[in-house]
Amino acid sequence: MDYKVLAHDSKSKARSGQFHTDRGIINTPIFMPVGTAGTVKAIHQRELYNDIDAEIILGNTYHLYLRPGLDVLQGAGGLHKFINWDRPILTDSGGYQVYSLAENRKISESGVTFSSHVDGSKHNFTPESVIDIQRIIGADIIMAFDECTPFPCDYEYAKKSMDLTHRWLERCCDHFDKTNDTYGFRQSLFPIVQGSVYPDLRKISAEVIASCDRDGNAIGGLSVGEPAEKMYEMTEVVCDILPEDKPRYLMGVGTPENLLECIALGVDMFDCVMPTRNARNGMLFTSEGIINIRNEKWKYDFSPIDNNLEGYVSRNYTKAYLRHLILSKEILGAQIASLQNLSLYLWLIRQSRYNIENGCFSSWKKTMMENVSRRL
Amino acid sequence: MDYKVLAHDSKSKARSGQFHTDRGIINTPIFMPVGTAGTVKAIHQRELYNDIDAEIILGNTYHLYLRPGLDVLQGAGGLHKFINWDRPILTDSGGYQVYSLAENRKISESGVTFSSHVDGSKHNFTPESVIDIQRIIGADIIMAFDECTPFPCDYEYAKKSMDLTHRWLERCCDHFDKTNDTYGFRQSLFPIVQGSVYPDLRKISAEVIASCDRDGNAIGGLSVGEPAEKMYEMTEVVCDILPEDKPRYLMGVGTPENLLECIALGVDMFDCVMPTRNARNGMLFTSEGIINIRNEKWKYDFSPIDNNLEGYVSRNYTKAYLRHLILSKEILGAQIASLQNLSLYLWLIRQSRYNIENGCFSSWKKTMMENVSRRL
Repeated sequence: MDYKVLAHDSKSKARSGQFHTDRGIINTPIFMPVGTAGTVKAIHQRELYNDIDAEIILGNTYHLYLRPGLDVLQGAGGLHKFINWDRPILTDSGGYQVYSLAENRKISESGVTFSSHVDGSKHNFTPESVIDIQRIIGADIIMAFDECTPFPCDYEYAKKSMDLTHRWLERCCDHFDKTNDTYGFRQSLFPIVQGSVYPDLRKISAEVIASCDRDGNAIGGLSVGEPAEKMYEMTEVVCDILPEDKPRYLMGVGTPENLLECIALGVDMFDCVMPTRNARNGMLFTSEGIINIRNEKWKYDFSPIDNNLEGYVSRNYTKAYLRHLILSKEILGAQIASLQNLSLYLWLIRQSRYNIENGCFSSWKKTMMENVSRRL
Repeated sequence: MDYKVLAHDSKSKARSGQFHTDRGIINTPIFMPVGTAGTVKAIHQRELYNDIDAEIILGNTYHLYLRPGLDVLQGAGGLHKFINWDRPILTDSGGYQVYSLAENRKISESGVTFSSHVDGSKHNFTPESVIDIQRIIGADIIMAFDECTPFPCDYEYAKKSMDLTHRWLERCCDHFDKTNDTYGFRQSLFPIVQGSVYPDLRKISAEVIASCDRDGNAIGGLSVGEPAEKMYEMTEVVCDILPEDKPRYLMGVGTPENLLECIALGVDMFDCVMPTRNARNGMLFTSEGIINIRNEKWKYDFSPIDNNLEGYVSRNYTKAYLRHLILSKEILGAQIASLQNLSLYLWLIRQSRYNIENGCFSSWKKTMMENVSRRL
């Protein structure tokens, strides 16, 4: 794949760029909606195209491997065909879910054994097998297998885990290079920086990852409960080492504020369940601030959800109606709130690009940070 | 309102017609998607317009009265504005839900007291109050307050209940005629035939209802567990008495087969939760038959859900994908299945109209009955 930086912000490390894949161009900075099990929850694929204009979405290897399973995905001709989505897809390696969802997991040098959270069946992931799985899924960007350390995590464990992740990375790269792209589309492997909240470990890891010379690089193990300041600090340390001419992907981040701060540190790609998960609980991200739509104050508010966005749901449904739907546990409430939040995220990211390219990112960011973090 | 019969089928009592309302023309026969609490579950309003082409939807007085409540609906300027739907809406009287959902209900001559299934709060519905409520909701067609008898129901109770329904009807009509249309749109009151499965009671009730000389007439108390043959028998008895020049609405019916049979008996309007409720459980109605999408046999079926329909979901998602979504309890599964089922119902009803108007309803119905009742 081919990545080109198009513009730099003069007052920060923010940049805009284009990542060319066989399934189309990804303009960076980009936010990738999370489609865990082959669906961005409560969103039709045509809405991803037309309402949100997502340029790339995420899939979860752990979930897809368990359901629908590789035989079904292979039979369909890959995940893209299975779900009817022809733009790029990135899959994580399954590492994070094995630690957060699976039961009875055991980590060893060779890999991880675990029991499915769905039916208790036993499985084994290795650096090689997760490459094979992601080949079969057919993702355009596939992630190396890592151990994602929790927070807090003592220095000794963080170092030991990082070293294991690096050894696994070597095996991932070897196996990736020995295997072929699937379904006629080029696949790229991204290695992942670990090292918890320790700057010296993060530096070591970033150097190892940079030396792999892959199409792009990822920063993992953040947004797992550490203070935002720690996340920014680690991101800065790592971004300063990861090569300038490749996209940098900060995994699992974050709030609209987090996105703006990390774009300023040189991050190009983001994913997070927050816009969709919080939507289902009634938390709305709007261009004017954050709304808990369950609050009594919205009961008689018949104004559109977000008049500054142009999307159907933002303009055509009111806060009072959405409040009613969420309180009544109506599915349409989850649909509307999810579309609103993803629309806001993608709008924010497009605005970031625009302002980077027009040389006014830093001043725009200052105003926008206040807007998007305000509690309405 | 103004109803015109446009065509008669020569071999049955089926007819097509147009019902003119202040919010647009309803072409009959028609099926009305059920929007219980101000939302057709899992369906966006733009999908009701563009995918399903629903000409009228239903709202439930009982649900809407409890949530969001009349103050919110009035504040919004009525249900249409609240939910952003400008075509006709019909509301039931709340009678059926009081019997099926509410707790501690007590029926007396004056009306019904009950406890809310949401929060246990106590409420009172009378023939007069349900007219007032439906005026505030702003439905284009509002229903008289009735007692819907269960099945089985002994003759004595059925007769006693029917007489009460008739006395309540008189009060509904009086109150309706003394009160004004709301929000600048004409409202029509439909009285409801009761009488359980007893032909002589049904005849008496149909005559009483016909004598009210309202804009349309409804048949209630069916599809409550009685055999289909009983339902058809009662429908026939009643249709033969209800005036030819007014629309006949069979409440709560039914399967695609039921619709075709009852159209042949002279019914013009239908509503039922079946297409949406069964969708959420993985039961699909297609132009080629009924599918339980949870079955193993669809696991590797990568054909479109229903190639004979033209809608987005029918053509663009596969059976294998929908099966995966339903088994994984993904919201998108409910969205796709609900759109498919409502698309099928509305397609069937449009096909019925077309075939009535082209003089081939009976032969078309024979083939179609086999198709839609087949288990795939």
